[in-house]
Amino acid sequence: MWLQRTITFEPRPRGIHLVTGEVLGALPELGDFEVGILHLLIQHTSASLTLTENASPEVRADLDAWLDRAAPEGAPYWTHTLEGDDDMPAHLKAALMGSSLSLPLRGGRPVLGTWQGICLCEHRDRGGARSVVATAWGEGKA
Amino acid sequence: MWLQRTITFEPRPRGIHLVTGEVLGALPELGDFEVGILHLLIQHTSASLTLTENASPEVRADLDAWLDRAAPEGAPYWTHTLEGDDDMPAHLKAALMGSSLSLPLRGGRPVLGTWQGICLCEHRDRGGARSVVATAWGEGKA
Amino acid sequence: MWLQRTITFEPRPRGIHLVTGEVLGALPELGDFEVGILHLLIQHTSASLTLTENASPEVRADLDAWLDRAAPEGAPYWTHTLEGDDDMPAHLKAALMGSSLSLPLRGGRPVLGTWQGICLCEHRDRGGARSVVATAWGEGKA
Repeated sequence: MWLQRTITFEPRPRGIHLVTGEVLGALPELGDFEVGILHLLIQHTSASLTLTENASPEVRADLDAWLDRAAPEGAPYWTHTLEGDDDMPAHLKAALMGSSLSLPLRGGRPVLGTWQGICLCEHRDRGGARSVVATAWGEGKA
Repeated sequence: MWLQRTITFEPRPRGIHLVTGEVLGALPELGDFEVGILHLLIQHTSASLTLTENASPEVRADLDAWLDRAAPEGAPYWTHTLEGDDDMPAHLKAALMGSSLSLPLRGGRPVLGTWQGICLCEHRDRGGARSVVATAWGEGKA
Repeated sequence: MWLQRTITFEPRPRGIHLVTGEVLGALPELGDFEVGILHLLIQHTSASLTLTENASPEVRADLDAWLDRAAPEGAPYWTHTLEGDDDMPAHLKAALMGSSLSLPLRGGRPVLGTWQGICLCEHRDRGGARSVVATAWGEGKA
């Protein structure tokens, strides 16, 4: 059993956004998988995907604040500056966080920990809409 | 062929721990796979999984020491502080290192490099037991 | 449908190298996959794989420069120094960037974003040849 679909996320402000519900809502067929994997790839180099704490917005804000400190805008060591001050830091943050997630499926849904949420990390000020290719494969329910 | 099982790791002290043997010991059925993938997801947001050097404990200690310097406890920029000084740094470290691994299988075992080991990174002082969902899929031996 | 092959990359200087064409050229059978996943694992702990901007060499140079600043050679906190000044920073950079990629396949090729390229990150001065295990699985074209 294979499922593949591109999910388009509306433009979001810079930050780390919890999108678990939006991902699962776009893939109702996951309910048919007894066991499998859900793979997500964000098709951009200045946005990323991560699993992190789903309860406290402070955790996501702190992660983003740390990334801003680690990869500061306007630092003298950036040479790729033509596309704006937020561009090169965004590429770095995306490389550090990663562009894909693979999540085990069991009984029709991802088997995440209690506090794990799927997050879309928008690293640009005006990143626009973001595309995520969702691919699931596995065995169907009997 | 699909195999899925949750592996529970006993509580470990903060640090980066080599667990290749423990993972393989918990999944004896991997021997039946001619070709495939083994996927591991740690179901927590303050612990992570990585592949790194399996020979020198110094490498793992140095990785952990760098993470401590990069994400210091008690830094003034953390706002999520209710769960202890080691909590927010742990979420960051987990996001940087990643929560899952995908390893190719060939001839009944993961095809790792000579020096690659599977590591469980415990980022909290008292993280407790940790759950890893192991999923393998592929083709069986003839 | 399964495909698994080890790709050997010639020695490259330290830096982040675009290898999309080389990877696809080594795997002509990807053209037979209607839907699937391509997984790549680099079998080393001082080199890594990432997706990043494929157009501007400056982006890749800036990513590498940032890694050099974040994980400096000769820092007093490294204890694993026997294998050269570039060794322990290389292990850290590899852990941060990650050792594997999973890419969705559709219509015979990876479904990457317009600006996404597959990069081999060589973190050592003389890392030598590097081995990548490529594994693809999915459904064939009708």
